[in-house]
Amino acid sequence: MSEVKIKKLHVIETSPRGDINLVCLKVETNQPGLYGLGCATFTQRYSAVTTVINDFIAPLVTGRGVDSIHDIWQVCMSDSYWRNGPVLNNSISALDEALWDIKGKMAGMPVYELLGGKCREGIELYHHCDGRTPQEVEDNARKLMEQGYRNIRVQQGFYGGNMKGCRQDFVSPTGAPEDGTYYDPDQYFRTTVELLGYLRDKLGEKVGLCHDVHERLTPVKAIALAKELEPFHLLFLEDALPPEQADWFRHMRQQTAVPIAIGELFVNPMEYIHLIDERLIDYIRCHLSMIGGLTPAIKLAHLCEAHGIRTAWHGPFDITPVGLAAQLHLDLACSNFGIQEYCTMTELERDMFPGAPVMRNGYLYVNDKPGFGVDIDEKLATKYPAHYNDNAWLRPRLPDGTTVRG
Amino acid sequence: MSEVKIKKLHVIETSPRGDINLVCLKVETNQPGLYGLGCATFTQRYSAVTTVINDFIAPLVTGRGVDSIHDIWQVCMSDSYWRNGPVLNNSISALDEALWDIKGKMAGMPVYELLGGKCREGIELYHHCDGRTPQEVEDNARKLMEQGYRNIRVQQGFYGGNMKGCRQDFVSPTGAPEDGTYYDPDQYFRTTVELLGYLRDKLGEKVGLCHDVHERLTPVKAIALAKELEPFHLLFLEDALPPEQADWFRHMRQQTAVPIAIGELFVNPMEYIHLIDERLIDYIRCHLSMIGGLTPAIKLAHLCEAHGIRTAWHGPFDITPVGLAAQLHLDLACSNFGIQEYCTMTELERDMFPGAPVMRNGYLYVNDKPGFGVDIDEKLATKYPAHYNDNAWLRPRLPDGTTVRG
Amino acid sequence: MSEVKIKKLHVIETSPRGDINLVCLKVETNQPGLYGLGCATFTQRYSAVTTVINDFIAPLVTGRGVDSIHDIWQVCMSDSYWRNGPVLNNSISALDEALWDIKGKMAGMPVYELLGGKCREGIELYHHCDGRTPQEVEDNARKLMEQGYRNIRVQQGFYGGNMKGCRQDFVSPTGAPEDGTYYDPDQYFRTTVELLGYLRDKLGEKVGLCHDVHERLTPVKAIALAKELEPFHLLFLEDALPPEQADWFRHMRQQTAVPIAIGELFVNPMEYIHLIDERLIDYIRCHLSMIGGLTPAIKLAHLCEAHGIRTAWHGPFDITPVGLAAQLHLDLACSNFGIQEYCTMTELERDMFPGAPVMRNGYLYVNDKPGFGVDIDEKLATKYPAHYNDNAWLRPRLPDGTTVRG
Amino acid sequence: MSEVKIKKLHVIETSPRGDINLVCLKVETNQPGLYGLGCATFTQRYSAVTTVINDFIAPLVTGRGVDSIHDIWQVCMSDSYWRNGPVLNNSISALDEALWDIKGKMAGMPVYELLGGKCREGIELYHHCDGRTPQEVEDNARKLMEQGYRNIRVQQGFYGGNMKGCRQDFVSPTGAPEDGTYYDPDQYFRTTVELLGYLRDKLGEKVGLCHDVHERLTPVKAIALAKELEPFHLLFLEDALPPEQADWFRHMRQQTAVPIAIGELFVNPMEYIHLIDERLIDYIRCHLSMIGGLTPAIKLAHLCEAHGIRTAWHGPFDITPVGLAAQLHLDLACSNFGIQEYCTMTELERDMFPGAPVMRNGYLYVNDKPGFGVDIDEKLATKYPAHYNDNAWLRPRLPDGTTVRG
Repeated sequence: MSEVKIKKLHVIETSPRGDINLVCLKVETNQPGLYGLGCATFTQRYSAVTTVINDFIAPLVTGRGVDSIHDIWQVCMSDSYWRNGPVLNNSISALDEALWDIKGKMAGMPVYELLGGKCREGIELYHHCDGRTPQEVEDNARKLMEQGYRNIRVQQGFYGGNMKGCRQDFVSPTGAPEDGTYYDPDQYFRTTVELLGYLRDKLGEKVGLCHDVHERLTPVKAIALAKELEPFHLLFLEDALPPEQADWFRHMRQQTAVPIAIGELFVNPMEYIHLIDERLIDYIRCHLSMIGGLTPAIKLAHLCEAHGIRTAWHGPFDITPVGLAAQLHLDLACSNFGIQEYCTMTELERDMFPGAPVMRNGYLYVNDKPGFGVDIDEKLATKYPAHYNDNAWLRPRLPDGTTVRG
Repeated sequence: MSEVKIKKLHVIETSPRGDINLVCLKVETNQPGLYGLGCATFTQRYSAVTTVINDFIAPLVTGRGVDSIHDIWQVCMSDSYWRNGPVLNNSISALDEALWDIKGKMAGMPVYELLGGKCREGIELYHHCDGRTPQEVEDNARKLMEQGYRNIRVQQGFYGGNMKGCRQDFVSPTGAPEDGTYYDPDQYFRTTVELLGYLRDKLGEKVGLCHDVHERLTPVKAIALAKELEPFHLLFLEDALPPEQADWFRHMRQQTAVPIAIGELFVNPMEYIHLIDERLIDYIRCHLSMIGGLTPAIKLAHLCEAHGIRTAWHGPFDITPVGLAAQLHLDLACSNFGIQEYCTMTELERDMFPGAPVMRNGYLYVNDKPGFGVDIDEKLATKYPAHYNDNAWLRPRLPDGTTVRG
Repeated sequence: MSEVKIKKLHVIETSPRGDINLVCLKVETNQPGLYGLGCATFTQRYSAVTTVINDFIAPLVTGRGVDSIHDIWQVCMSDSYWRNGPVLNNSISALDEALWDIKGKMAGMPVYELLGGKCREGIELYHHCDGRTPQEVEDNARKLMEQGYRNIRVQQGFYGGNMKGCRQDFVSPTGAPEDGTYYDPDQYFRTTVELLGYLRDKLGEKVGLCHDVHERLTPVKAIALAKELEPFHLLFLEDALPPEQADWFRHMRQQTAVPIAIGELFVNPMEYIHLIDERLIDYIRCHLSMIGGLTPAIKLAHLCEAHGIRTAWHGPFDITPVGLAAQLHLDLACSNFGIQEYCTMTELERDMFPGAPVMRNGYLYVNDKPGFGVDIDEKLATKYPAHYNDNAWLRPRLPDGTTVRG
Repeated sequence: MSEVKIKKLHVIETSPRGDINLVCLKVETNQPGLYGLGCATFTQRYSAVTTVINDFIAPLVTGRGVDSIHDIWQVCMSDSYWRNGPVLNNSISALDEALWDIKGKMAGMPVYELLGGKCREGIELYHHCDGRTPQEVEDNARKLMEQGYRNIRVQQGFYGGNMKGCRQDFVSPTGAPEDGTYYDPDQYFRTTVELLGYLRDKLGEKVGLCHDVHERLTPVKAIALAKELEPFHLLFLEDALPPEQADWFRHMRQQTAVPIAIGELFVNPMEYIHLIDERLIDYIRCHLSMIGGLTPAIKLAHLCEAHGIRTAWHGPFDITPVGLAAQLHLDLACSNFGIQEYCTMTELERDMFPGAPVMRNGYLYVNDKPGFGVDIDEKLATKYPAHYNDNAWLRPRLPDGTTVRG
């Protein structure tokens, strides 16, 4: 098969939702009509990924055979010397996934078959749900339950309490800058405990509830939150700590049995290997494009299986349906699949990415076409160009003006 | 002072050595003539850094005051959500260093004064030295010693043994691809032990000798190398393990007292915090631009000081003289400075970067102008444009064709 | 700048509150009008600090340049051979802070600018509050809340229960000496749990409440107290253990998520480095003058930041407004600032130390003059001479007569 | 006995050797002729100890009964709130030892009897020995052996190599300050390995040889030194690491069985408790006056015994014969006594301190008078007043000008 070679890398930037930039890579081969798609999305720094692919990955891999995915992956990682991290990982991910798509097409098989075949038929999902009050969250959750979802991620007032300034008086006393989004960690703590108690009371025990802290508490308060949420039987508590402070999970584990999920921010193996080896977490939540694609994700899933940890890959919005499909093919072929994050796609996204996975009764399904089974309508994509967005919600500030991460 | 604001970010890509792309950021303020320079160099992916600065950092920070370096640093780290890693860190580093340069100019002081003043006058250096045979390495080392260097990094045949195929017969048996650079780890192991023994015998005990493994051994062989080199009293052994396998240093520490240096590849705090807390290393060797600039480097130096570890920041070639000066100002102000890597600058580099540090008798000196004391001749820089280079030496392959990193 | 030299060290002892001795160091230079102030206060042994400065530090540093703060700090630490500990640290602190004050003045910048600029505008405070009964504490807390404080340290009956003999019958049965202050740890335990429950009930969840154990419990009872206070959502529990028994925090951490603060008694790096590396505490509470000044505090803050721990420097009474200002400048420039202890200054203190920080709406603010921005009225200071005080409250005894510390 | 009360504290500063200031405390009682002596010596900051005793300890304890040594010790430690560290510990030590001296006199017994009686008759010693060359050290060692010493601490060229500038060219290239004492750690390393090899070869295996690193190496080089000295069967290696970096002993212990001694610099329990509990050292070398006197030393010896560690209290010069006697009484009464450091006293010292211990055949002996058996001739002492000394040898600098400790 070695006569099939990479002929051209073609990056497609698009923004079908308006506020989320997607980046998709099309790898064309010297075989007419044979190409693969991969997800390169790093929505907040999208064009840097494009630069890496066009300026460095393309000259490095054009002309190489498509077969040796492992070799190409190592070549790309090695060639930049400094490695790991977003941008570089996204660019490698895109190529890696596209080569798996091509391999599936060459085999005439869905990628999950190449990975060893299905462990299950449908992929259990959880869906996001927000609201300004506990009642509103409840109402929105019930709507999702009616659509078939059995697991819901519940938040009140976006991340970290009310997005629109929880302490309206903070501006004048300190003269802190107006940049970013102010929030009050203590108010967030209180409203979250109340919210979960309310929902468990109203919705009963049968619905799976999870919650995303989005790193917006100090470590010890995150532990305290886990403890206070323990009676409400969470599916899991997500991103209770920033990756840089993950050693605090050791303390969290000693005090609570709340299932712990983390990983969407992981961009470096040293962020997860200790957590897994010490069994400090229960779900690994990486964004495949952020760790370098399907190849390292397969290995990561296997590492987790060895330690009794399950997968819950990062899902919504800031991933192309191609990248989502790559995750789903892996979900199907992993013994230790746990759950899949998902948020309803728009019709435009479905038109732009024909073959995108479909939800039925709270399960997500891929089609059985060769490769990942998802294509892209490039003309439609170019009608919705990517563009700079302000990320004010990602620049949280404490009431005194301190910028934190999350 | 808050009326001084960031007016414009201007990226300068240049390549005065031909094979090394440098990226420098000029941050202009609303005060005529007041600007700062910072190093954004990631030579292997240089243009991606430029994209991040132009497309994301510039709109984020233009118009902000120059004073609050910590706040701007956090804002930049927070805004991309996914963080750390090369490219992003380089872009933040460039801004961070430029703001320290501006602050020094506003204070009318060299930056080292802002950092608490000098702990020493001159900065002890080590210089690279290579050769095809032990004798050639010896000859080159003696030339450096005559120039005043008291510490030399010695390698035979580039990294990992002879760059030009150590096993000339490898091609036919396996049909492995011709891409990259083949080397034989076992030959490298043997020649390196011989080299150090030869040099210590010929050069005596007074010269400081270090060696860079460049990650080209398996972990257990790296430990074995450290043990076999122990009688030769190395200044340090560098990059004996890849960052992803740094836990192996625990075993190395149990078996040998060879001083251990690592860090130029570090791009994420989780790569170093355990090594430091457990005192598994002796020198931290980060490239300031790769960890986000002077601000995090100050903090890292302090973390190391508490644990008895010294600094040896990454030096040569793939850093602008601006970035080198930033490191030197920190070297001067750190109790736990250890040594500084340095390779002789060309005249062109000196012309392009007026005020670049100068070497005298094996010590490097910065000037005492406000800020970092280094400027850039932009017209000259544009005459030597950055351009794509093949990094074959960074794509090492084992004799059987396996691509490894290093 | 090296022509600016230390000309004279002048110690000022004063006692504006009557029962608290303050020690301030004025470092005069050979430049007319250029001097710096530093806090040397060790109120219980104030004159010993004066002796060290006059007899040993002054001859050691007079005539040296003011620039190289790090070098002078190391010289002072090294010169006494035996090092760390109160008295010596206080004397070095005074010089260190004065040199930073001078450097700020030479740069024409507030010291926080030299430290990297502001991370926030106002400095969130907590204020002391005491009372004989829960109601009295509540009343006093409400008064503070009306003044703008959002965080309050609550104690009932001074430290360790009622200062005036909690068991009035203790004298006769044992014939224990009348020296010091008797208290009953069990009564203290009970009243404290009741107090916090009462206050949380009356004051609601929005006010930050912390409590200082002042080392007055056995280790296991301290752990039990933390657990019983956990439902009341403390901002933190302070000095639950003496520094010599800090290893017990490992057990406390396993059983409770109550935020832990300690540090005002720390006088030696070996008292804190394990606590920080193992993330056993949440707030570091050192008294800058007791650890050697601003220079080591910067390093300590950075060590804490790497481990997810925040600062809450020791505040009230036994620190000059100069020393308080030094802490506040650091508070402004630290990402990981947590909160600042503060107790209302008297008018006399403000007159004696012009430029002292001011409280507005629960935040403390420094002025924007060069250096720390605080001066001293020496004539006024000499009108309130320091003098011996009996420290009976610092000599607590158990009902059986046992002297403990705290 | 409680009618015997402390009447007066009288501090005697003296300097019989000229370059070493001694401080002795005389505690007078209300019983005519009944007094005790204690050692308060902190030679580098002697007058600060005097200030603490006169200004704070004296008013605190005058009038108290002499019996309850433990209570008074706790009262003194508690009263300053901030505690431990030199100066404070020295002041408490002086009182503590004087009260033990009084108690012995009141019992009509030597103190060792109060401590449980003798475990041995003579106290095995080691004596200091220095020289400019290995031969000179050998000659001096042989002289000591002729005097009866069986154990000798050998150093070449004072601490850290040659005191008089090992690299005579360092001054001009860097312009580093001339303050302090320059030394070259690498030269020190080499000469020390050679020295010990030479001496073991010349003197045979029967003499006990130890060596004091005086903290003058980086941690990893200290480990390397221990390894290289291992074949020479040291009695012990002393102060290989500074107290602040004592965690590195964990690594040293993994690589070598050289007996490890440390402790003369210890001034805080947190400096030694981990070392003892983990059995990382073999000899505890505290200076009794620096840890608070005989009372805490008894407890420390017991802690060491539980962990198989032996005593080797700090001996020479900067301790009064009173303090030395206190150590010897403890040596006699400890099962886990190891060895005692000692340097020959001058005749003047013996005249000034009648009853000082005497050396016979390499053993030291105390007399059998009540108490410690040592008195002071105050008139003679006042003829040799204490005075400021420059401690240049305690301000070591590396060749580049860096001040280190040691």
